[in-house]
Amino acid sequence: MKIKDLNDLFLAELSDIRSAERQIVAALPNMIRKATSTEVTAALEDHLRVTERQVERLDQVFASINEKPKRVKCKGMEGLLEEGKDMIEDATEPAVRDAIIVAAAQKVEHYEIAAYGTLAAYAKLLKLPNAKLLLETLQEEKEADVKLSKIAERHVNSLAVAA
Amino acid sequence: MKIKDLNDLFLAELSDIRSAERQIVAALPNMIRKATSTEVTAALEDHLRVTERQVERLDQVFASINEKPKRVKCKGMEGLLEEGKDMIEDATEPAVRDAIIVAAAQKVEHYEIAAYGTLAAYAKLLKLPNAKLLLETLQEEKEADVKLSKIAERHVNSLAVAA
Repeated sequence: MKIKDLNDLFLAELSDIRSAERQIVAALPNMIRKATSTEVTAALEDHLRVTERQVERLDQVFASINEKPKRVKCKGMEGLLEEGKDMIEDATEPAVRDAIIVAAAQKVEHYEIAAYGTLAAYAKLLKLPNAKLLLETLQEEKEADVKLSKIAERHVNSLAVAA
Repeated sequence: MKIKDLNDLFLAELSDIRSAERQIVAALPNMIRKATSTEVTAALEDHLRVTERQVERLDQVFASINEKPKRVKCKGMEGLLEEGKDMIEDATEPAVRDAIIVAAAQKVEHYEIAAYGTLAAYAKLLKLPNAKLLLETLQEEKEADVKLSKIAERHVNSLAVAA
């Protein structure tokens, strides 16, 4: 796929983040199953629903510019999820596994914060309709990251100290 | 590598980010070569020096806890850098290539913001010496991300609109 201008780049990045979101939707159930803390489980279950809505929003953005997602697999998210999965498997105790799950989820959130920040900047410059939808998702990702930090610092990390 | 408590997890995450930083040091020269904008080139050259210092800081943290880095390859960073490289190669015009380089660098920054944020929280809880070094790097990563956003929004993205 050749990228010759910002319009092409917007479409490439939009297709990339759609692949990333779909990989997250596929990976979250395993993370939920492996979590022990009810607070972590609840946060991830909530995030799964939010992520599904974010995929729908991306489809609205594609429709509004009369485009279809390119068939790409987001390699960044693939690596992040694989790394998280490996570390979850290395955990021998439930409490440290919860801490690992939260840390892995925050790496995922930060990928999305970078991607949606970039996409929103492109959409604004290109005066695209539905740029607001990208900003909505960006805000949700930032809030999810803050929420995970609070969960980690309130309970999860302390419980992992002497797991 | 088995992870049984927060001490093990700290060591695993510290080894992971050291691998990530070293992958960034190896990847930046290619991104610098491919960039056209003098502002982008200067920012990446500066970031290469900062990243080399951050690796040294990590080694100080390892030394202060009498540990050596585990032999791991950070899969998250591997995926992020591969994704960036692929997209840089898809660019047919210098101006859009600059925009791609900035976007890829911001994904890298956000990985580091997540990783150092997590590490600093663990270090504080574990009352480790040199936790301050991790906060210093975290601050640098956040500043690098803001700087890249400014470069993108001031010049780089506009030039890519009709590249």
